[in-house]
Amino acid sequence: MDEIKIIEIKKSVFEDNDKDAEKLRKELKDKGVFLLNLMSAPGSGKTTTLIQTLNRIKDKVRVAVMEADIDSDVDAVKIKEATGVPSIQLHTGGMCHLDAEMTRQGLDNVALKDVDLVVLENVGNLVCPAEFDTGAVRNAMILSVPEGDDKPLKYPLMFTVCDLVIINKTDVMPYFDFDLERCKSYIHQRNPKAQVIPICAKTGEGVDAFAQWLLTEVQAWKNN
Amino acid sequence: MDEIKIIEIKKSVFEDNDKDAEKLRKELKDKGVFLLNLMSAPGSGKTTTLIQTLNRIKDKVRVAVMEADIDSDVDAVKIKEATGVPSIQLHTGGMCHLDAEMTRQGLDNVALKDVDLVVLENVGNLVCPAEFDTGAVRNAMILSVPEGDDKPLKYPLMFTVCDLVIINKTDVMPYFDFDLERCKSYIHQRNPKAQVIPICAKTGEGVDAFAQWLLTEVQAWKNN
Repeated sequence: MDEIKIIEIKKSVFEDNDKDAEKLRKELKDKGVFLLNLMSAPGSGKTTTLIQTLNRIKDKVRVAVMEADIDSDVDAVKIKEATGVPSIQLHTGGMCHLDAEMTRQGLDNVALKDVDLVVLENVGNLVCPAEFDTGAVRNAMILSVPEGDDKPLKYPLMFTVCDLVIINKTDVMPYFDFDLERCKSYIHQRNPKAQVIPICAKTGEGVDAFAQWLLTEVQAWKNN
Repeated sequence: MDEIKIIEIKKSVFEDNDKDAEKLRKELKDKGVFLLNLMSAPGSGKTTTLIQTLNRIKDKVRVAVMEADIDSDVDAVKIKEATGVPSIQLHTGGMCHLDAEMTRQGLDNVALKDVDLVVLENVGNLVCPAEFDTGAVRNAMILSVPEGDDKPLKYPLMFTVCDLVIINKTDVMPYFDFDLERCKSYIHQRNPKAQVIPICAKTGEGVDAFAQWLLTEVQAWKNN
């Protein structure tokens, strides 16, 4: 098993997270680094989606990954082994989200001059991460089919703050009462501008569309 | 659609939640009321499991339900329509968990003299609810097969505080890489005393075992 760097994240002391997040975004802009904040409930397939996506983009963009987890390092190990992409593990020590300062503690351990894109895999939680701007340029989330198409009704803020909603595990749609069009309409009730990309991370179906979205966003940020 | 009472929960002012939770537990004991705190990630099937279970126990025990949700009232409506069991909705107003005082605000709206058992369906979240004792007599959680068998490694506290882990959606096990024995061993790493009951809430398989566990616990509490 590859050695993975584990960063123990400390609680932030900054009171104004929104201001701090804007500052971090500007610092990243100056360095030419795009930060994606990827959120979801536990078990929606964030890591599998990331592996499929990284293998499609790693030759086109210089990318690193930060895996936030309360305790384990299974995700960072998986990412590094399956893609070869530099990956560090952020331990939140029980904390249920990352804010901008906690994200910065992670970024301090990434060689930013060697990357164009950092993907932050946030703590698996549909509530708290939505409340804290991490300083990311874009927020994306994964909703998996087994969770149900009513989740935008029950976790409104998460769907409001995300630029992109990836709907994962489309292969098991026949076994669940999940209506894709109904789900899209609930998402757009919360956030009319949200893009929706259905994928199956297990088979790779639809992942090209997410990879293309990400490459386009990174390019736009660098050229902007 | 039935009218559902919606309680807007206020943030607690108590500093010592553990002490407050013990106090609430004692109050409930004096009233002969058993409180079950049911937790899980979003979309694990808490409400469907509850409907199946309530229909099996409602003639044997006087039961009421409190459905905690950030915003919607879909769960309380579903419970009442599908089981006839008295059900109220607790709105947490964005808060990611319930503590003892917030639980008490809900209980103040339940006719406690008419019930033996109150089931609290906590906010769908594997992180924060585990950190706050609600005053419940027992904690149970639902882990659904699509979430993956590695969740006890990634959300350790949740599995540590639960007396019972229900493994739901066993019908889709063939479509997911979920090893029940591996999952049990991870759960018992966190909590050697945890009971594990596999169920399929959709078909009802295994729900009898959960219903029996609950009836036995309620009886033991009343006789204790």
